[in-house]
Amino acid sequence: MATQTTGPATGRTYDREAVRTLLDRARSAGRDSLTAPEGKAIADAYGIPVPGEALATSADEAVSLAVELGLPVVAKIVSPDILHKTEAGGVEVGIATPEAAADAYRRIVANARAYNADAEIVGVQLQQQVTGGHEVIIGATTDPTFGKIVVFGLGGVLVEVLKDVTFRMAPITPEEARAQVEDIRAVEVLRGVRGAAGADLDRLADVLSRLSDLVTDFPEIAEADLNPVFADASGAVAADLRFVLDFDPPAPPKRFERAEILTAMERVFKPRSIAIIGASNEAGKIGHSVIKNIVDGGYAGAVHPVNPKAPEVYGHKAYASISDVPGDVDVAVFAIPAKFVASALEEAGAKGVAAAILIPSGFAETGEQELQDEVLAIARRHGVRLLGPNIYGYYYTPEKLSATFCTPYDVAGGTALTSQSGGIGMAILGYSRSTRTGVSAIVGVGNKADIDEDDLLTFFGQDDNTNAIAMHLEDLKDGRAFVEAAREVVPKKPVVVLKAGRTSAGARAAGSHTGALAGDDKVYDDILRQAGVVRAPGLNELLEFGRALPVLPTPKGENIVIITGAGGSGVLLSDAVIDNGMSLYEIPPDLDASFRAFIPPFGAAGNPVDITGGEPPSTYENTIRLGLDDDNVHALILGYWHTIVTPPMVFAKLVANVVGEARARGIDKPVVASLSGDTEVEEAAQYLFEHGVVAYPYTTEKPVQVLGAKYRWARSAGLL
Amino acid sequence: MATQTTGPATGRTYDREAVRTLLDRARSAGRDSLTAPEGKAIADAYGIPVPGEALATSADEAVSLAVELGLPVVAKIVSPDILHKTEAGGVEVGIATPEAAADAYRRIVANARAYNADAEIVGVQLQQQVTGGHEVIIGATTDPTFGKIVVFGLGGVLVEVLKDVTFRMAPITPEEARAQVEDIRAVEVLRGVRGAAGADLDRLADVLSRLSDLVTDFPEIAEADLNPVFADASGAVAADLRFVLDFDPPAPPKRFERAEILTAMERVFKPRSIAIIGASNEAGKIGHSVIKNIVDGGYAGAVHPVNPKAPEVYGHKAYASISDVPGDVDVAVFAIPAKFVASALEEAGAKGVAAAILIPSGFAETGEQELQDEVLAIARRHGVRLLGPNIYGYYYTPEKLSATFCTPYDVAGGTALTSQSGGIGMAILGYSRSTRTGVSAIVGVGNKADIDEDDLLTFFGQDDNTNAIAMHLEDLKDGRAFVEAAREVVPKKPVVVLKAGRTSAGARAAGSHTGALAGDDKVYDDILRQAGVVRAPGLNELLEFGRALPVLPTPKGENIVIITGAGGSGVLLSDAVIDNGMSLYEIPPDLDASFRAFIPPFGAAGNPVDITGGEPPSTYENTIRLGLDDDNVHALILGYWHTIVTPPMVFAKLVANVVGEARARGIDKPVVASLSGDTEVEEAAQYLFEHGVVAYPYTTEKPVQVLGAKYRWARSAGLL
Repeated sequence: MATQTTGPATGRTYDREAVRTLLDRARSAGRDSLTAPEGKAIADAYGIPVPGEALATSADEAVSLAVELGLPVVAKIVSPDILHKTEAGGVEVGIATPEAAADAYRRIVANARAYNADAEIVGVQLQQQVTGGHEVIIGATTDPTFGKIVVFGLGGVLVEVLKDVTFRMAPITPEEARAQVEDIRAVEVLRGVRGAAGADLDRLADVLSRLSDLVTDFPEIAEADLNPVFADASGAVAADLRFVLDFDPPAPPKRFERAEILTAMERVFKPRSIAIIGASNEAGKIGHSVIKNIVDGGYAGAVHPVNPKAPEVYGHKAYASISDVPGDVDVAVFAIPAKFVASALEEAGAKGVAAAILIPSGFAETGEQELQDEVLAIARRHGVRLLGPNIYGYYYTPEKLSATFCTPYDVAGGTALTSQSGGIGMAILGYSRSTRTGVSAIVGVGNKADIDEDDLLTFFGQDDNTNAIAMHLEDLKDGRAFVEAAREVVPKKPVVVLKAGRTSAGARAAGSHTGALAGDDKVYDDILRQAGVVRAPGLNELLEFGRALPVLPTPKGENIVIITGAGGSGVLLSDAVIDNGMSLYEIPPDLDASFRAFIPPFGAAGNPVDITGGEPPSTYENTIRLGLDDDNVHALILGYWHTIVTPPMVFAKLVANVVGEARARGIDKPVVASLSGDTEVEEAAQYLFEHGVVAYPYTTEKPVQVLGAKYRWARSAGLL
Repeated sequence: MATQTTGPATGRTYDREAVRTLLDRARSAGRDSLTAPEGKAIADAYGIPVPGEALATSADEAVSLAVELGLPVVAKIVSPDILHKTEAGGVEVGIATPEAAADAYRRIVANARAYNADAEIVGVQLQQQVTGGHEVIIGATTDPTFGKIVVFGLGGVLVEVLKDVTFRMAPITPEEARAQVEDIRAVEVLRGVRGAAGADLDRLADVLSRLSDLVTDFPEIAEADLNPVFADASGAVAADLRFVLDFDPPAPPKRFERAEILTAMERVFKPRSIAIIGASNEAGKIGHSVIKNIVDGGYAGAVHPVNPKAPEVYGHKAYASISDVPGDVDVAVFAIPAKFVASALEEAGAKGVAAAILIPSGFAETGEQELQDEVLAIARRHGVRLLGPNIYGYYYTPEKLSATFCTPYDVAGGTALTSQSGGIGMAILGYSRSTRTGVSAIVGVGNKADIDEDDLLTFFGQDDNTNAIAMHLEDLKDGRAFVEAAREVVPKKPVVVLKAGRTSAGARAAGSHTGALAGDDKVYDDILRQAGVVRAPGLNELLEFGRALPVLPTPKGENIVIITGAGGSGVLLSDAVIDNGMSLYEIPPDLDASFRAFIPPFGAAGNPVDITGGEPPSTYENTIRLGLDDDNVHALILGYWHTIVTPPMVFAKLVANVVGEARARGIDKPVVASLSGDTEVEEAAQYLFEHGVVAYPYTTEKPVQVLGAKYRWARSAGLL
């Protein structure tokens, strides 16, 4: 009867043909939902367990079927025209006797007729009444950003109030499903607490992954609710099913192949020649700032100003049109008003540029969506990728390239930063300059008419000049493409994301600013985590993580030791360790004895190792070296206390030396430091940072937060 | 029969005499718990509703009583020797027939005999079986820090896992009890969701406040559990009661009267003369740094070095003993090793100093608890207050007093800071100097042998030189005294607390460092909030709140408007507003129209007001003035975007001017700003701060977090 096929993420065998037939029938009938028997048939085809049930078409049949299924039973109206069965008086529960079954049948049919006289009434479905054990919700929906997503949560009114649910992008493997089930806050309840029996978590994960396969196989299933699912130690049963269909979903966003993306991005970030459309000799004009930054920044490729009114701009021969430029042009930077972009882009396209950098505003962000669509169409026709519009441009330090009207930036290093907003771009620039953060790239994505975060992730992921990627975003045009790109990159280097518009008030502001449809934050949170992305809670953390993650080596294990001169810092650092999802190493007696050999008798060994405040540099040095040399210690957190005996720069240099020596011996562990002291600790922190130790003054939280971000990444990357 | 008396916080009438009699009987019998009938009697005396019940002493009596109470009933063993009744097989529920009552009686008595052959069996208590509605927990316990505290939470396994409970220090008023009930996260459940009936929250609050009165009236009730309490719309019934008694509680900490504290503290912070015990001419010695700082800092009072070996120290005549100093001495700063403190303190005490500032370490923190106790005893004998030991000293800028071995500090202002740890003290000093924070005082409290946070709160609360108080602490010696002092101060000025040792790992570190018994963090969190204290989540926030709160005027209402040049900042600022417990003002149409008159057509009015990036200074100026002048707007958050048109210092000066003009016209609203831009925004932020606008570069979170702290305080102070 059935064609058995294999599930997308589970390798399981399903009866796809049966589902296909059912859905086709619903489509033909113009329906956007399924009846209960149809739902059961779909569940059967995908091995989703449901209660025994049967369709009664008379009161007598209701009686015999109820007895056959086993009392008590539930009775529900079956009608393609009645979706909200309870509202229609079409549901009765706790039917415990044969007579009650007959009565229920008659009442339900009468109620349904009263509710909708025109409804086609197929009959009354009788179902084993399942209760007891734990009540959970398993569902799937179609998210505007991520497409098919699955949800798991505890059922019941209390959890609805506390909103203890988790999301994943479908399809998920059985292992991912198991992790999703365990991701709810109250999972302890499902494991069984205070003598209550637990549920079979594997079985719940199995149901979840089967539903994930189903909605992946049949995109027209827009929503699916298994609610409630009753689960105990012996299994799980979906007591009620609901499917919503959509046979006309919005078209998926345009996708490029990885090779296509890389070809274009290589030309964008490592161009041999750049044309500046609208380059100007007039100081204060954007077209002047752009060519000035490119030339003064030391870009080594060819620079071609395009300006019909000047023979030369900023010392370079100018052309009336990009068409006149001799040889190939890789990148055209547009520094002209929006209304002139389309025609200039036609010329640039004909010239064969890889990309147009659209600095001008006056597109979708000011309501000019049509103009933006027109420009995009031209670009697509010519195979030109667009960056922007409405951006400050971009920087790529390995090529000494500052294609921007902002101030130039030349501190080369491993961090690539992107921002959807120009304001945030300026904060990136100022912060980076102030902290001497080494960056590979800073990129404005603005309206994201074309190039967006997944293109940039794909490039930076394989770019040897980039060790970490930090992105500010308000929305994702194609969340699925982003997640796929992130999954590719995360095993190689950390990806940090600041998702703005997290709260409902924030999401509303995003709506008014970019027209972006900000999704529910919990969906973003869970799915970004699923993709291995480190989420920055705020702008400052995005910047700090971006600066610090490439500086810190990757930890090889979870054993963290705090060494502190200030007991008070030790307590706060310990708080921060727990707050950031790490734990303190239980130092074994032999290592404890080794630490004790170096510290005063009233110092506290254990963890934190409190060397006490009045100690000379050698005590810091000896204990830090001990921590670095011990194979079971994987990361050090230092708490420095400014004293006359060990002044800030003495501390900074000794730490840099000890850590440097260890690295020379092949011991490369993350070391972070919190510096408590007078203002000299600021210089000491900067020195330490530049010597591979992430250090901050006047805060115990920040260094530990950064270490926590590194750990989160290392765990996601499968390195721990 | 009973003496009716009045409750401590509710004015209700209770039968105290009945409880007194019961407790005295338990004490005489050497018992530390009460039987169920005793528990019921206590509940009756305090009007705590319990199910109807009666004591059966035979199976026949069980039958007649069960019928009389109304079936179904619950049966429980009554024995002073059996505390864990269920474990003993001494509880049966759901007894629905008279015969079942007889059977249950026989079974329970047999089980109890089998469990403990020696147990005295008083009988079997029969009780109306109460179920249904909502299950909550109401309890009281004796906290080592705060004394009697009451707890409220939802019952049931799920909430036990999610730990949705709230604590308050007893006694509480009925209003506080109501607020406590509403403070649980899942309170919506109690209000009734999805058609379920709600509970009578006033009745629950009533039960809670009655229990609070009970444990306040009878301190020997160490613990009380009403668990479960069943609550519905018609009332609440405590289905089970448990009381634990402690007739020998630890002695309460020594308390001083407010007047005594102020007399001593006035002499400490505004001394006419200071002796430095151990003052030295040798650079590098603590006794040298202390006198140098006092003298060089510009302290105007008399300075008396005490040093038997030098005729003069740092230009001041030295004395062999403090006894030799002519005239009165208000403060003696001890800069001598721990072992010499006791004898020198005898002399200082005889001299009549108000306080001894004990800088030396080597007391309780190194295990020398006895030495510390001895020194304290000497101080008590002489009526001398002790600050420390194990501290850096203290600063009080209005008197130009730096009585410390650390570097001096002289930027006067409104913030008083205290720290339990010297390391944190150094961070306070460095941060303050770096940010030019105006402080009134910095005080190390160290081991807190005597003077602690409540003494300092009492002084700073009435000190006209202090506008805000920021305290780092690891424990509270007397939480109740702290809360009482804080309640006195909060209506006048903000109190910020960083409580270290929040997490279990942190708490353990506190244990090893100071011997402090760190309480459960949720208890601290709820009770500090109850006291109106603003809790800083970390060291950096303690410092920022301390710096910024005195700068910000107090808001007069909750209507907050964001004005931003960068749409991207607007989104992040909106996120931060929600994160920090505030909300964005829904701008009415007329004000919206007024804003629109100043901004480009493609800018977004509404809230945030997005003036867009390319605007001149006048647009910032006009919109900010509009926000300041509108009576319905109570606070402004500015998002600045660095452009050539409005550079950072131009922005800073225009904002300072507009805000200054408004203040001159009597309009004083809190204004905070987030500056996105190149490094010039750092100078602009500092300028703004010094002109009364709390501004930070490279962060959207921090200015809003500070505003949120001001709002939290203003709400606690009853100003909103």
